[in-house]
Order: sequence, then structure tokens, then C-alpha cells
Amino acid sequence: MARKIAILGGTGPEGSGLANRLARAGEHIVIGSREASRAEQAAQQLRAGIDGAAQIEGADNAAAAAQCDVALLTVPFSGQAALLWQGSAAEAAVELLPAGVSIAAAFQNLGAELLAGDAPLDCDVLVCSDDEKAKQVAMELAAKIPGVRALNGGKLENARIVESITALLIGLNVRYKVHSAGVRFTGLPVK
Amino acid sequence: MARKIAILGGTGPEGSGLANRLARAGEHIVIGSREASRAEQAAQQLRAGIDGAAQIEGADNAAAAAQCDVALLTVPFSGQAALLWQGSAAEAAVELLPAGVSIAAAFQNLGAELLAGDAPLDCDVLVCSDDEKAKQVAMELAAKIPGVRALNGGKLENARIVESITALLIGLNVRYKVHSAGVRFTGLPVK
Repeated sequence: MARKIAILGGTGPEGSGLANRLARAGEHIVIGSREASRAEQAAQQLRAGIDGAAQIEGADNAAAAAQCDVALLTVPFSGQAALLWQGSAAEAAVELLPAGVSIAAAFQNLGAELLAGDAPLDCDVLVCSDDEKAKQVAMELAAKIPGVRALNGGKLENARIVESITALLIGLNVRYKVHSAGVRFTGLPVK
Repeated sequence: MARKIAILGGTGPEGSGLANRLARAGEHIVIGSREASRAEQAAQQLRAGIDGAAQIEGADNAAAAAQCDVALLTVPFSGQAALLWQGSAAEAAVELLPAGVSIAAAFQNLGAELLAGDAPLDCDVLVCSDDEKAKQVAMELAAKIPGVRALNGGKLENARIVESITALLIGLNVRYKVHSAGVRFTGLPVK
């Protein structure tokens, strides 16, 4: 049976954007929300925006998590929290996970507006993890989004730096009056 | 009279690389070092590597600082210090400066090996400053290096994020076995 990817707390713009892109890439998506009805509504809207047979369902978070092989957890960016705490959202999430679940940090630098629709992006995704399998899965998913290159970002602790780049991108968006800032790394021997 | 640019503590690879690039762009450079003789030796080596009439002198740091209009201070990257302290090297430098001197943080993400020679780079330079004049001067200098785009990085406090990107670039260099990693920002309406 094909794998299912849950996007927990996935009715916000970032979660919906990732659901949109991964469904377009042929993945079977289950959007999770605290209320199943909101998740189903978001799934329906996304399906309506995609030509052809996109597999996007909605469920409450618990049901979405229970049936998935891979779960994406999208966490709101908070500059405030980043200033108060040295670590990363990804590292904080580790402490909440049950045993046997591996984690990778990724996708932090892809803005929600870029993820909507189907225009190719021009961005790299740094994937940080202490678990090689989780890193591979995240890199494989990232590379399915047109115009995205997945890069090995090293250990999970590097996620704090990748998260801070999001703050820079938000600042660039403000100063240059766009919503499309992204990041690429140059000088690397990988396409 | 044309301005002079001092590169204080400029005999290391990063300082010499910036001296090389800015002299090639027609700037008058004074390399500063604790020992004038070392600075003069570094200046001579750089001049020998540049076709035509490059203006690169050497002096001790005090003399270099006294005669310059703009001074570049290159600070060794220390991941250790970054972990121990929330701020940036640029913010630390502010406390050491005499009154009336403005500061901008820039060039942190250009590797020394990229700065040697004359091959065009493929990198952006984020310039962070609380002083508009200092920011303009740094952006103007950065843009003189072939293949470099200068971007407005906002306030000086953002330098801590830009500095942390250097740690990511060093990690990418190690994992991808190169010395050429750099960063570009995409989706911006500036060339």
C-alpha cells in the first residue's frame, strides 16, 4: 500500500502549501487539525485547486497521525521564542515525540506564498537530522517540489541556524516589498 | 584625494582575500597588522598576484587605522564563541569603537578561498547596520567584487544570523567536500 503523509496542524498556509506541493507530486496526504471538519474543508479546497486526481484527505490530528507513515509538523515561526531560547523548534519537538519516532527538520525557508499554486520555486531546503533514515525521507520529499534542491544540512542542532534564516527572509521580504524571498547555496557539486 | 581602505588584522586569508578583490576594483588598500613588516610582506605578495598597478600598502594596525577613511576588521569565525554568546562579533566590535565611528557588518559569508584570485563569485553579501551611511559604503564595496550582490540585511543585530550562516557554509563545505559554498537569496527584485 502506498504511504500516507500526515500534515499535522496542516490547515495553516505553510501546512496547506506543503500538502499542495506533495499531493501534486503524487503523495497521499492526510491533513490533520484539531477539528476534523476544518481539516476536511482544507483538503477539499486543496483538491479543488489541483487538476487531476490529488489524494488529500482531512482528519483530526490523532487520526491523521495514527494512519500515516510520515508526519509533517508545521510550527509557526516566532522570532520572540527564538530570541528567548537558544535551541530550535525541531529540537523542542524531539522531547514531545514518543519513542521510535525519528525526526528531521526541513522546509523552514519555503514561504507559504511560494508553496501555494504550482509555479516552480527557486529555493534550497536544508535537511537537518541525527537520523539518516529520517534525513533521507525528508530530502526525498523536498526534492519532489519543482525547483527545490534538497541539501544535507547536517545534524539536527543545525536546525536553529536554518530557522533563523527564516527571520532574515522575512526581513528581506519587508525591505524589498515582496513575499518571495528564498535561499540558495552556491558552489556545491549537487544539482 | 582618493579614499584609503584599511584592512586591520588583514594578513590572514579572509583579510588578504578582501584586499585582493577591493584592490582589483581600484580601491587604495592599506593592510594593517600588529607588525608592520608582516603587513608589508602581505601587501607585496598581493601586488605580485595582480596584473597592472594595484594600490596595496602595509602598515601596523594603528598607522593603517589613522590614515584610512574606511576600515575593514576581519574577525576569525568561532563556533564556540557563537554558542556561548547570543550576540554577534559585529555587535561586540561596537563596544570597542571610539565615538563617531560607524559600523556595518558584511562579507561574513564569502570564503577566503573564493576571495583569492579573480574568478567571479556567485554569492550575496548581506550588509547589516544601524547607520545608513555605513551600510551604503559597505554595500558599495561589496558590489565591486565580481559576482557579488549586496543586499540590505537590516539592522546590525541581524549580523548574528548572517554570522551563523557561515557555520552552515563550513558544514556544507565539509559534507560536500568543497571549499566554495556560498549563499544567494532568491525571489528579490534586485540584481
